[in-house]
Amino acid sequence: MKIYIYGKHPVSEALEHRPDIIDKVFVDQEHYPEIDSRAKNKGIFRQPFIEKKLEKKLGEGVVHQHVAALIDTERLVLDFHSFIETLEGKEKIGLVILGEIQDPQNVGSIIRSATAFGINGVLIPKDRQAQITGSVIKASVGTAFRIPLVEIGNVNQTVRELQDRHYWVYGLAGGGSKNIREEDFSENSVFIVGNEAKGLREKTSEYCDVMLNIPISEQAESLNAGTSAAVAFYEWRSKQ
Amino acid sequence: MKIYIYGKHPVSEALEHRPDIIDKVFVDQEHYPEIDSRAKNKGIFRQPFIEKKLEKKLGEGVVHQHVAALIDTERLVLDFHSFIETLEGKEKIGLVILGEIQDPQNVGSIIRSATAFGINGVLIPKDRQAQITGSVIKASVGTAFRIPLVEIGNVNQTVRELQDRHYWVYGLAGGGSKNIREEDFSENSVFIVGNEAKGLREKTSEYCDVMLNIPISEQAESLNAGTSAAVAFYEWRSKQ
Repeated sequence: MKIYIYGKHPVSEALEHRPDIIDKVFVDQEHYPEIDSRAKNKGIFRQPFIEKKLEKKLGEGVVHQHVAALIDTERLVLDFHSFIETLEGKEKIGLVILGEIQDPQNVGSIIRSATAFGINGVLIPKDRQAQITGSVIKASVGTAFRIPLVEIGNVNQTVRELQDRHYWVYGLAGGGSKNIREEDFSENSVFIVGNEAKGLREKTSEYCDVMLNIPISEQAESLNAGTSAAVAFYEWRSKQ
Repeated sequence: MKIYIYGKHPVSEALEHRPDIIDKVFVDQEHYPEIDSRAKNKGIFRQPFIEKKLEKKLGEGVVHQHVAALIDTERLVLDFHSFIETLEGKEKIGLVILGEIQDPQNVGSIIRSATAFGINGVLIPKDRQAQITGSVIKASVGTAFRIPLVEIGNVNQTVRELQDRHYWVYGLAGGGSKNIREEDFSENSVFIVGNEAKGLREKTSEYCDVMLNIPISEQAESLNAGTSAAVAFYEWRSKQ
């Protein structure tokens, strides 16, 4: 799918890390000479940034900073089987599965934290899951171009396949039975982050090897999905 | 200052925890009978939610869910000296200072994580810092009504005062000298979270007792300010 990305940082990151997926850059040379010349050097088609025309495509009220690009997510997002083969035989692998995350801010935030803590790939179900859009890329501050994004079909089936490949699968949920601090993450690990309101599906929880919990105060109801994921990645990384 | 808050969760939380700061609730009985009757029972003035009229006040494109309230932040936000007196003699205190955070999403996210991990108060400088607004309250999912929010003047002066009271002051910065994992947080602790782009001011860093760092991958540039704060609170809590 072709999507528009916008903002100085996301467009710069795309040019630096994934020029191959960019169809067009919308930029005015006088505003962003660096972005313009980088696009030119890579042979990417450039057009002036015409606000009136682009606002319709980017959505109103979007903080575009007068720079945008049209990219092809089909070239960005990897196929699960070819991706997982590249990890064969490796150790200290960490993956995350987005389990019906709805808020693009959370998707972007999880991608950013996953990149920061050295997670090896973000697995994104095709259905009932917010897909990669300009606002996800913006929220990820462009890290979406540095970490493998991988399309998967059914979550439970993917979990089974990963377990067959000896991955240990962790569900992140408020009521998880094991305190995350006590887990040693000695095997290749997969984290499943559940929906903001409903958490993980019951069936998915049953498929997990361990349901983890991050201890919080009795006064509080829950952590944000992006925050839970970040704490899990942090804890995982500190044990590798 | 009077501000409008909006959304089902924030308004419900205000009614439950801080009905004393609510001037008015804008709600239609048929949409939200529970919110309406709770407001009625607490003797709070109610008005119908008239979208056209309220959109001007809430801002366009805001996800208000057809419910709002007018609250008084002067009654919500505490004075530093009276707040700090209430903690005198207590142990295992954790505080956070917002150090020129600009994004309301980050402010709300830090308030939410602080509440979740049992931090005792959020210290908010009067100047050069995003103040409490409807979007901060929304991003905090209403936890802003459960945790003490405290106004402070100059950050560096507040740091000195806290040090005089034997608090240990931690700066959160990418290049901090001490790995957060190795800190034992045995004293009452204060975390300062720096600006999203610029981090902590140099002068403020000099005032800190320890500059902490959260180890991240070489591939990544930085963590989001809200994420750094959440990881720090998590680490602190696990050592109390």
